[in-house]
Amino acid sequence: MTELSTQLLPLGFRYGATTAGLKASGRPDLAMIVADASASAAAMFTANQVVAAPLVIDKQHLTATGGKVRAVVVNAGNANCANGEPGLEAARSVCEAAAKLLNCSAEEIFPASTGIIGVLLPAEKIVAALPTIKIGRHPDYFSALAQAILTTDTIEKTAFARFEQNGKMVHIAAACKGSGMIHPRLVPHATMLVYILTDADITPRVLNGYLQGAVNKSFNRISVDGDTSTNDTVLLLASGASGVTIDAGNADFAQALEQVTISLARQIVGDGEGISHVIELLIEGAASDEDALLVAKSIAHSPLVKTAWAGCDPNWGRLMAAVGYSNAKLRPEAIAIYFGELEICRDGGRSPLFDMEKAHEYLQQDEYSIRIDLKVGTGSCRFWTTDLTVEYIHINADYST
Amino acid sequence: MTELSTQLLPLGFRYGATTAGLKASGRPDLAMIVADASASAAAMFTANQVVAAPLVIDKQHLTATGGKVRAVVVNAGNANCANGEPGLEAARSVCEAAAKLLNCSAEEIFPASTGIIGVLLPAEKIVAALPTIKIGRHPDYFSALAQAILTTDTIEKTAFARFEQNGKMVHIAAACKGSGMIHPRLVPHATMLVYILTDADITPRVLNGYLQGAVNKSFNRISVDGDTSTNDTVLLLASGASGVTIDAGNADFAQALEQVTISLARQIVGDGEGISHVIELLIEGAASDEDALLVAKSIAHSPLVKTAWAGCDPNWGRLMAAVGYSNAKLRPEAIAIYFGELEICRDGGRSPLFDMEKAHEYLQQDEYSIRIDLKVGTGSCRFWTTDLTVEYIHINADYST
Repeated sequence: MTELSTQLLPLGFRYGATTAGLKASGRPDLAMIVADASASAAAMFTANQVVAAPLVIDKQHLTATGGKVRAVVVNAGNANCANGEPGLEAARSVCEAAAKLLNCSAEEIFPASTGIIGVLLPAEKIVAALPTIKIGRHPDYFSALAQAILTTDTIEKTAFARFEQNGKMVHIAAACKGSGMIHPRLVPHATMLVYILTDADITPRVLNGYLQGAVNKSFNRISVDGDTSTNDTVLLLASGASGVTIDAGNADFAQALEQVTISLARQIVGDGEGISHVIELLIEGAASDEDALLVAKSIAHSPLVKTAWAGCDPNWGRLMAAVGYSNAKLRPEAIAIYFGELEICRDGGRSPLFDMEKAHEYLQQDEYSIRIDLKVGTGSCRFWTTDLTVEYIHINADYST
Repeated sequence: MTELSTQLLPLGFRYGATTAGLKASGRPDLAMIVADASASAAAMFTANQVVAAPLVIDKQHLTATGGKVRAVVVNAGNANCANGEPGLEAARSVCEAAAKLLNCSAEEIFPASTGIIGVLLPAEKIVAALPTIKIGRHPDYFSALAQAILTTDTIEKTAFARFEQNGKMVHIAAACKGSGMIHPRLVPHATMLVYILTDADITPRVLNGYLQGAVNKSFNRISVDGDTSTNDTVLLLASGASGVTIDAGNADFAQALEQVTISLARQIVGDGEGISHVIELLIEGAASDEDALLVAKSIAHSPLVKTAWAGCDPNWGRLMAAVGYSNAKLRPEAIAIYFGELEICRDGGRSPLFDMEKAHEYLQQDEYSIRIDLKVGTGSCRFWTTDLTVEYIHINADYST
């Protein structure tokens, strides 16, 4: 982040972070993003039916304001989920405190939480710490935001894009967190939290269209452990401060946004809990894109496949088994599997070109691609996932105690 | 097995095992079950679309004979799956050799395989070893059968039941294997292999009815790792040698069979790869039995829930998250969770009775029950699963290399 120039940051937003005392580590755990004026907002939330209190409030607030957000208040260290009515009250009291501070309505505040589920959020700590947050439009402050929202993440995750239109620059800057409980299924719906800021001038309705398109090629195409969180939230805010109006169908904006979301999605997978390999799955020749996604998820959630990857073990039979129980339309005797350029499986059986040594060597890379051609149609998808390691077990067998 | 009396063994079957040289360990890996005369057969196979060669042959043979089996030939050390036409030829040549030995038709032979996927079965080793198998109706021979079919299993798994009807005894004896790639979804459908023998006199059609009923309360209600195998097979053979005819609706037979299948299913879970805890899930108050099963499977397949169990961590929030993404009908604010008699979650939030120490102590037991009441209906299910440990990763990160 040190090289990050202020020139990459969208106009119209300031941000910052502080320590409210929610993380056991004592690290910064409370951040704010403040729009200079109320910004257009597009949001997607988890498809999990058990949703955290802030998400309930967020949906109410976005409806009440018609898609306008003045400020985001996000804490790490506590998910504020499965806390019943007291959880909702805690989230509301945070909104009221922030609204008072910013002289806006509570409904213009977008609260968010990440951390442990089922422990009441100590709202009083947040309310007390809010006034101490220093905000500014500066790389150091953006980095502070990106740091404060982390939980089991090991690195901060940001992405930037910009493009010119009619002689004016449009900027997109984004920060996110996510490392475990990562299998986002976002519906014009975390423990994944993603904040994307742009200074483009866009209505909330158009903004939502762009967000859904970008999310379905990025955050909805990754899985670390197959656990869909109660808190996943992707928020895209547009300040309009660039003076550039973006209507529906703007290829430059769509491409810049996609570049940012795919970058963040890959960063999340790359920082998955305990992982040692990132795997890009390219599923082709499926009966439909939906079928291709079924196959990718079946593979990405197979403990036997993921442990084989951890051991750099070219046990492609486990891939075949996972494809077989995916519920996608299949002709097992036609399936082809490639590790990068290496043909591993042909016509549903071991390829005559299969070379155990070369396959093993290929799987020793930190990142690699596995391509599966089902040969029943033209559906496809691109999906990113990870291996499953001893370190993942260590991290998660001892989280709340 | 040493206490096992010959009196528990059904009449009309002999069995035995030998070493064909398929297991790297050099342990016995080839077994036969021979019916004195062709037996009535009921079989269920995996729902995986990628199925092993012997299962393809089994289905053809059962159709051809109208549900009659003279002998089962089963090898461990090689799954004979994803081997294309050569795999089918290998299975056929094993059947032909066994048929010649027993002076029956090849279609009366029921082949089975378990082990690594995608490596051609060395049929010639099996054909050479078949004549060396000594068979008999004796506990030692039954134990030899139960031992030879094991792969990563650590103990042999058998179960027995008998009951009297009209002054005559009906016996059921069963042996099975299964430790990893365990999430059977059997349709009037292994790396789970189950062989159940009875001397009851039953037609294949009636036998299939009993088998489906018993499997849906046992093998279809367990999961170790969520990976549904390409080879799962449950075979029930009835010799008729007891002279007792069993028609449909015989409660004694149904109960005895269920006793055996539930015992074996629990033994498989209890010997799951690397596991340190067996968890019985009791899902109640679901909109339907199908919904209850959705919730049980969602929990049983959540790496975050399973790693928490490994750490005896009462992180019930992970249970809530897994319930939430199960696709079952829910009212999150009504959900109740109990660890045995301990109330953990009430009305979707932490119970006022929640006691971290007691909950932690409860989870330190080798076996325990978690009950979840969804409070939306009367559907329920009972399901057995395991934790996910470092040892599971070690076992599976280094299997084929």
